[in-house]
Amino acid sequence: MQFASESDHRQWLSAQSALPRGFRVGTTRLSFTPVEVSKPSAMTLTLIVPERPTAAFAALFTRNAFPGAPVLIGRRRLAEPRLGAVVVNNKVSNVCAPGGVEASEALCAAVAAQLGLQPSEVLPSSTGVIGWRLPVEAMLGALPAAVESLQGRSILPAATGIMTTDLYPKIRRVDLGGGAVVGIAKGAGMIEPNLATMLVYILTDLTIGREALRRLLPVAVGDTFNAITIDSDQSTSDTVVALSSGQVDGVAEDAFAEALHQVCRGLAEDVVRNGEGVHHVMRVAVTGAPDIAVARGVGKSVANSPLFQCAVCGNDPNIGRLVCAVGKYLGNAGLGLDLGRCRMSIGGMAVFEGGAFRIDSDTERRLSEYFRQAELYQSAAPDGRGVFKPTISWPPHERAVEIAIDLGVGAAAFTVIGGDRSHEYISENADYRS
Amino acid sequence: MQFASESDHRQWLSAQSALPRGFRVGTTRLSFTPVEVSKPSAMTLTLIVPERPTAAFAALFTRNAFPGAPVLIGRRRLAEPRLGAVVVNNKVSNVCAPGGVEASEALCAAVAAQLGLQPSEVLPSSTGVIGWRLPVEAMLGALPAAVESLQGRSILPAATGIMTTDLYPKIRRVDLGGGAVVGIAKGAGMIEPNLATMLVYILTDLTIGREALRRLLPVAVGDTFNAITIDSDQSTSDTVVALSSGQVDGVAEDAFAEALHQVCRGLAEDVVRNGEGVHHVMRVAVTGAPDIAVARGVGKSVANSPLFQCAVCGNDPNIGRLVCAVGKYLGNAGLGLDLGRCRMSIGGMAVFEGGAFRIDSDTERRLSEYFRQAELYQSAAPDGRGVFKPTISWPPHERAVEIAIDLGVGAAAFTVIGGDRSHEYISENADYRS
Repeated sequence: MQFASESDHRQWLSAQSALPRGFRVGTTRLSFTPVEVSKPSAMTLTLIVPERPTAAFAALFTRNAFPGAPVLIGRRRLAEPRLGAVVVNNKVSNVCAPGGVEASEALCAAVAAQLGLQPSEVLPSSTGVIGWRLPVEAMLGALPAAVESLQGRSILPAATGIMTTDLYPKIRRVDLGGGAVVGIAKGAGMIEPNLATMLVYILTDLTIGREALRRLLPVAVGDTFNAITIDSDQSTSDTVVALSSGQVDGVAEDAFAEALHQVCRGLAEDVVRNGEGVHHVMRVAVTGAPDIAVARGVGKSVANSPLFQCAVCGNDPNIGRLVCAVGKYLGNAGLGLDLGRCRMSIGGMAVFEGGAFRIDSDTERRLSEYFRQAELYQSAAPDGRGVFKPTISWPPHERAVEIAIDLGVGAAAFTVIGGDRSHEYISENADYRS
Repeated sequence: MQFASESDHRQWLSAQSALPRGFRVGTTRLSFTPVEVSKPSAMTLTLIVPERPTAAFAALFTRNAFPGAPVLIGRRRLAEPRLGAVVVNNKVSNVCAPGGVEASEALCAAVAAQLGLQPSEVLPSSTGVIGWRLPVEAMLGALPAAVESLQGRSILPAATGIMTTDLYPKIRRVDLGGGAVVGIAKGAGMIEPNLATMLVYILTDLTIGREALRRLLPVAVGDTFNAITIDSDQSTSDTVVALSSGQVDGVAEDAFAEALHQVCRGLAEDVVRNGEGVHHVMRVAVTGAPDIAVARGVGKSVANSPLFQCAVCGNDPNIGRLVCAVGKYLGNAGLGLDLGRCRMSIGGMAVFEGGAFRIDSDTERRLSEYFRQAELYQSAAPDGRGVFKPTISWPPHERAVEIAIDLGVGAAAFTVIGGDRSHEYISENADYRS
């Protein structure tokens, strides 16, 4: 897909955004002043509400050892018979804040009271600054407006409401058997999920049992959200939730699994494409590995190498750094593999074979041109304080730098999707909270 | 130590630079055009020569699975009875280049011929662009000038000759028992050594046996060079070499070990302080860990977190990212530690205790001021192409951001030294080879 402008992209999003039957979403904005930093801040509160509480829900969470309060509560909610609402806020992630669990539970209780639910039927999610306290009073005050805004037509307000440093909303849909699987994602930084990811909500009207959904979601996540990285920083709040309203019968489990996987794959790539400061998406396909852990490790080592990331950003095919990153992982793993048959290519052009580089000045030129073709945007001059801002608010295309690494020693394969490293990333994160 | 200017710092370096007895160094510059990129480039050739070939030498090398040709040759040299010279070049690292081993051996043979040695008595080292071929003809042509320049007074020309993106030369010395241990280091990027490091040459006139030197060097490297990281990219060329000319007798092995450790510690910190784009050094001291691997893993996770690095660069005490980086490692390690007694502080100020953050707007202000005090330099406005250049060519001070993490579950400890992440790093590495 290619998009010529923001309005082009938003038009496509609108076409994707019809809510599956049996769901409503609502959002509202509110202002508050954090206890920790005396500066006025703004937050969006988003509600996702099935018409009737559903037993068919599944969720996966981060493995970070300091998870947020909503993750702690979410894990408990998995044991509840039904889920009746999801309440999401951006700006403050409610991680390890004093009284954080109590704050989230108070919010759930208020949502339940307004929607006629039990507090335990409400799942909370929070994303944003780690360490700040949730401004519960301000959120409770804003809640009626969020309830008031609930509507069943479009998921777009929710996809927009959960954004933080994202440049644009992310929606993917698959229509199937008279129903649909529709997902939204938030995530642009602190992204290297492990068994879950950023914030993702997947809604379907297709009938699928609770157990089946809980079996299929981890499979779909395995090589989609768990295969991406922006900055190797696995968040404290990663959450993927899937809900079925069960209004459309008769879809086969295989077909549903495929649709679910497709939605997860699309969203995962969207998250990387919209990663903080990302100019190039890179797809690192590792094959010929002795097992999947090694294939994944090599792919992650390349995608997370700061030096290779910088080279890609500069359209500089510095393939020495590619080989260094592969060798770093393999050397530290101490596997003693025979790498004589290892082969690496970029955009189909062989760059390493038989233990040596295969480059000359012509290959260098063609590689550099290939990098340029895959670029999402070029940096604009920084402002007077040296701050770089992205020049786009939509994805102009979906091309990636395709890197293939065949280790030549086994049959296992894994593909990692990552981004490059730019001045825009530094500018975004050197003073993120201001 | 503090230095008010480049000349201040160079004066101090000169005072450190007297060569131990029995060594000479020489350098020369040469021009060449790489096969891979048709642009004129410059290289420095450096010779380090003991007066007589010595059996007392030791070396450690990278664990990267794609090591450079000089590393492959260096490993073989460890079995040789004596070492008579080290030849080092910058600009081209000679890693996986076609015919790379033959090129390095040809250089060793030429050095040997000019100095009256066996080729197997010459140890080669190369650093610089990975993938390019060594310009052997140009190097052989320049060799006589390097031999001509050999002198026994100062190690400073060698410390300068091995530099690549380093802003300043690095020398550390300890005087002991009428002799000295003097070391130099090159390294500013692609730095997270494993069992070795960048390029480091340690010379001593103190008598120490071959076996003792080979026993003591890995110990000295363990918590110095192996405890640092600039960008988590473990190089293909990491090498540490130690040589004794054996001209001063009577030093105790304990005292020698201590001096060796002190030189390694100083150089390791110098490498981080002069890391590419580093504005702040951070010292991450992890205590209370169940074992050293966990302590090291937590320290590395913090020092290598792109988001925490950016926050430190911006003088922004975003401690949520500190906790996230600790939790990322511990969660993935799957140790199930009880972290109720975990405690974190920055500059002695407690920020996390009893499972929750301890911050308010006053603490935030004091932390930010503390970060500012530890800053080595501030960014200057970028040039018209948005390129940032460091504003210093000397280390103004040796202060670091002191981060203490007490896991509260065991007795093991490890301290990692790292740097922050700045626009200067991106500018340096987006088009490093041009």
